[in-house]
Amino acid sequence: MSIAVAIVDAETPGNVGTIARAMKNFGCSDLLLVDPPELDPDGEAYGFAGQAREDILPDARKVSFDHVVDSYHTVGCTAVTNEDASKHVRFPFQTPAELAETLPADAALCLVFGRESSGLTNDELARLDRVCSIPASADYPVLNLGQAATILLYELRTLTVESTQLPDDDHSADPAAVEALHEQFGEFLVALGHPSEKRPKTGRMWRRLLGRANPTGREIRTLRGLFRRASERLADDRE
Amino acid sequence: MSIAVAIVDAETPGNVGTIARAMKNFGCSDLLLVDPPELDPDGEAYGFAGQAREDILPDARKVSFDHVVDSYHTVGCTAVTNEDASKHVRFPFQTPAELAETLPADAALCLVFGRESSGLTNDELARLDRVCSIPASADYPVLNLGQAATILLYELRTLTVESTQLPDDDHSADPAAVEALHEQFGEFLVALGHPSEKRPKTGRMWRRLLGRANPTGREIRTLRGLFRRASERLADDRE
Repeated sequence: MSIAVAIVDAETPGNVGTIARAMKNFGCSDLLLVDPPELDPDGEAYGFAGQAREDILPDARKVSFDHVVDSYHTVGCTAVTNEDASKHVRFPFQTPAELAETLPADAALCLVFGRESSGLTNDELARLDRVCSIPASADYPVLNLGQAATILLYELRTLTVESTQLPDDDHSADPAAVEALHEQFGEFLVALGHPSEKRPKTGRMWRRLLGRANPTGREIRTLRGLFRRASERLADDRE
Repeated sequence: MSIAVAIVDAETPGNVGTIARAMKNFGCSDLLLVDPPELDPDGEAYGFAGQAREDILPDARKVSFDHVVDSYHTVGCTAVTNEDASKHVRFPFQTPAELAETLPADAALCLVFGRESSGLTNDELARLDRVCSIPASADYPVLNLGQAATILLYELRTLTVESTQLPDDDHSADPAAVEALHEQFGEFLVALGHPSEKRPKTGRMWRRLLGRANPTGREIRTLRGLFRRASERLADDRE
């Protein structure tokens, strides 16, 4: 599934390029520009777009705000919300995480961002289907346009990115291998001459430490080998 | 709790400014620069920093990589991981969401980012405590430095932002008010002369629609008022 991004009245080409790059990073491609600035192929938009300079940016379409409203289920993004439920303009809003959970997977979706200086106007927001706001520090909640779009696209990646660059994270060691390391550690304590009355407590310390570290099979094998060799060498020394 | 950010060998001042702004947006302040470019007060770093130009950027400290390693529990950020568990350089890694759940709240923490062109070197990553990678499209997973840092700081906001700009999102309508609207809707159907055999089904459609919309108290009151007035007017017409 792809999600379109519309930028209304962007003031600086650089932010258009930044957004195009984030779109490519997170599996989106349909960039819509309402009243855009000139995008010079040698300028900042292309300079900031990374590999999106090859497709998303040159393929961007100039459209009207009406076209966006008519063609998509729209999400207006704004840093400025309020508690006034009586206007129905900026409240209720959803956070990016809430959006990711509630956007319909079968609809044509469009994230709509406004100008750098002042965002979307109340009249624009009033015509959009949903309002989204990124939770940020009360002291300075206004994000840069490109950074805000990056966060939205990141948060919605579960809808748009089919496969990531990351290998499967299923690397936890086999519990039996961890137990074997614990036995080896116990033998190491014996070979080291660690006082027998202290061994259970030291063994528990080691178990708790590994328990928190979520070790890989490789880590467990390496440590087991180290303690086995150390135990053998220590035993040799005593003979 | 604050989290420090270190940028190693940044190549462009603009990204330093972008990161400073994201830090301020998400409640962080301690910016460390290892081998930074010149940051001209009239240049891009200050231009991109938003309100962080007033504090985080001028307060940034030039430090050595050794200082970062010695002073913090460090998280190295990289787009490039691999499945080779035998090198212990880029695997195992954590995602930003996993970091948010597992970083110790009582430690001095530092996120470490590398150069725009090539990130952190293997030698640098090897000295850091954890590795973090942002899941992105397999087709183009390499984020811009400033955008990657923005996502990390956003994802870790639960650790660093004490209060956000957003009002409490506890606005759901009182269930009794919703039920009263459903009764009013039923009266509206009667007043409208909607066939009695169809009323239960139409009532259910309305209940399902509102059930998904998570309406506010204000929305419920407004709709109830509209249907009450409509019912009264429809009844008047029939007399």
